[in-house]
Amino acid sequence: MTVIENMGKKAKDASRVLATAGAIKNKALNAVADALIDNTDKIVKANDIDLENGKAAGLTPSLLDRLKLGSDRIKSMAEGVRKVALINDPVGTVVSGYTTDNGMEITKVKVPLGVIGIIYEARPNVTADAAALCLKAGNAVILRGGKEAINSNKAIAEIMRTAVESAGLPIDSIQLIEDTSRQSSVELMNLSDYLDVLIPRGGAGLIRAVVEQAKVPVIETGVGNCHVYVDESADIQMAADIIYNAKTSRPSVCNAIETILVHKNIAEKALPAIKKELDKKNVEIRGCDRTREILGDSVTPATDDDYETEFLDYILACKVVDSIDGAIAHIAKYSSGHSECIVTKDYNSANKFTSSVDSAAVYVNASTRFTDGGEFGLGAEIGISTQKLHARGPMGVNELTSTKFIIKGSGQVRN
Amino acid sequence: MTVIENMGKKAKDASRVLATAGAIKNKALNAVADALIDNTDKIVKANDIDLENGKAAGLTPSLLDRLKLGSDRIKSMAEGVRKVALINDPVGTVVSGYTTDNGMEITKVKVPLGVIGIIYEARPNVTADAAALCLKAGNAVILRGGKEAINSNKAIAEIMRTAVESAGLPIDSIQLIEDTSRQSSVELMNLSDYLDVLIPRGGAGLIRAVVEQAKVPVIETGVGNCHVYVDESADIQMAADIIYNAKTSRPSVCNAIETILVHKNIAEKALPAIKKELDKKNVEIRGCDRTREILGDSVTPATDDDYETEFLDYILACKVVDSIDGAIAHIAKYSSGHSECIVTKDYNSANKFTSSVDSAAVYVNASTRFTDGGEFGLGAEIGISTQKLHARGPMGVNELTSTKFIIKGSGQVRN
Repeated sequence: MTVIENMGKKAKDASRVLATAGAIKNKALNAVADALIDNTDKIVKANDIDLENGKAAGLTPSLLDRLKLGSDRIKSMAEGVRKVALINDPVGTVVSGYTTDNGMEITKVKVPLGVIGIIYEARPNVTADAAALCLKAGNAVILRGGKEAINSNKAIAEIMRTAVESAGLPIDSIQLIEDTSRQSSVELMNLSDYLDVLIPRGGAGLIRAVVEQAKVPVIETGVGNCHVYVDESADIQMAADIIYNAKTSRPSVCNAIETILVHKNIAEKALPAIKKELDKKNVEIRGCDRTREILGDSVTPATDDDYETEFLDYILACKVVDSIDGAIAHIAKYSSGHSECIVTKDYNSANKFTSSVDSAAVYVNASTRFTDGGEFGLGAEIGISTQKLHARGPMGVNELTSTKFIIKGSGQVRN
Repeated sequence: MTVIENMGKKAKDASRVLATAGAIKNKALNAVADALIDNTDKIVKANDIDLENGKAAGLTPSLLDRLKLGSDRIKSMAEGVRKVALINDPVGTVVSGYTTDNGMEITKVKVPLGVIGIIYEARPNVTADAAALCLKAGNAVILRGGKEAINSNKAIAEIMRTAVESAGLPIDSIQLIEDTSRQSSVELMNLSDYLDVLIPRGGAGLIRAVVEQAKVPVIETGVGNCHVYVDESADIQMAADIIYNAKTSRPSVCNAIETILVHKNIAEKALPAIKKELDKKNVEIRGCDRTREILGDSVTPATDDDYETEFLDYILACKVVDSIDGAIAHIAKYSSGHSECIVTKDYNSANKFTSSVDSAAVYVNASTRFTDGGEFGLGAEIGISTQKLHARGPMGVNELTSTKFIIKGSGQVRN
């Protein structure tokens, strides 16, 4: 049995205890929050080693910033865990129920998924966030973070494990894989005897690798090639405001937009107004021929690649379309199925767009930046699913559960 | 582009039409039912070829029987399709909804999964059943049946396609892969650009192969290593009746039981009563040492392999356990997570078993044979999921849907 198989086995055993742990889970979460605060110095010291290693390895300032854990960030990490304790426990919720003709009472109830694996990259706060959400829903978790944050992750995981145990739950409810070689991720992806689901959190490359290689069920998260379509009847200033917000309020996240589509009958008026907003943050526009006719040569020509790219930067592709159908077809071809928006005053266009666009979140007259567990009222978020199976869009504790049927009879047999 | 990729593309295009097809789907289903009846002769002729080929290939009488389609079976196939038309359409159902503090109306609504692949074995009636359920939930389907039934499947699929088109839906809403080589299944398992989910229906070997090889999301179905636990406080005759029913009413199906676990304090009285029932159908019992002490040498010794095996036959493994915890631990170790039952009169034992046993269906005092979409009131069933992601237990049309968030705003942007 390898180290990781052994972790799988221990996680499965812990998950059986967690499945019926009830309110002890909240006691454990609050103990974790206390312990994170109490051990701030320890975490900061471990984090300092990661930061030094990161500088030596030439990480960019923005990556170093994501890696850094000061006492403020540790405090907000602990507050996040406390908030998870306050969410309603989904386990035991009756989803549906009825009595059959022969008198059996059937109920379908929510149960934990069991053992969840999380593969993630540089941000060490994911260690606490993800573990807390998994625990809340009664799951054991095996974390496999990036090598850049390994010392921070080890410190956080150790503190959480001790706190969970002190609250009376199995110490192996939370485990961290300390080996950050490629081999350890591959082993986790193949751990089908123990893992009920694997959730990758990170860039497109990581997610694709996991989806292609994993033999365990995976929930695909996060890649967002998002669009705003400006309909013929749009309020132009509203369109410009939404596009400006969706592109520039935080370009590096998955719910930021990458391409706008503009109806030909409004393009001449709308494009200059949109450009005026985008110019405030020096957004580079890459446009189709018709866009360039209107906005001039400061707009570089857009290629097919541009329409496929999640820029995650101050770059926006732009295409003039002949109709709402053209916009819907473009989205069907290029979107990653995350979030799309129509800006319109027309009732029929709004309905057509929301029913025909096949993405996790479809907006009328609001910024795609709202696609987020917190904004959608889920309390906290383990990730944003861009697949259709099991969960779609922002996933909270409810999405970390399965169901089972409980059938209470009095001796019934089947004919 | 290969033949199967091209089918994927056509299915995706068809799925976009089906997503908003509404009641036309029912018109199409009724047209399919009519066409199946009208073309009975054609189906029977095609089926005769399969039967002749099957005899020549040395198929067993029971396999030949599963393959055979007389006019009665075709009629019941058509009736099955008509029943699917009568089920409520899940598409558009609002799962939840609320208004955010900033005035956005968020609703989570059911939408089709998109394109579903089904890989199945010898029974040609699956072609009609599965296609009807997928269509009802607004999905395009790509069917890949076994080579034994290929002529029957081709006839049925062609009839369905024509009928669906006559009702005004895309002919490629239903497609059958005519190439029954291994290569065609492998291609389908890798069709990640087009397939939203792949559902294998068949024996353990097929399901394992699909789970291990597929790069698209899979719903694992059907393998049932099911248990009955006879608690210390059980009504002995009820236990014997349930065991007899769950083992012998149809041993070849996944909800039949394979092992019984008997509390040591009731074993001496219960085992002879259980054996008396099982002897009516000459069920072979393979028991642990304590079982053999009570029932004698007619019981062969059980091995670890026996506890792992889905016999699908008149064979039953038996183990005497020291406590309900022993029963729960045995089930945790050997069960495939399908259906388990406790026979008990004790309130606490019933609750402990239903909360601690981690299977899709957990029974108190009723036969596991009820785990079935029809019996559970789902109308019809595409399969029984033994995984925890997306769907668990019998799956009907609701389990062939996903959700999306629709957000209606009035210009909201995110701070």
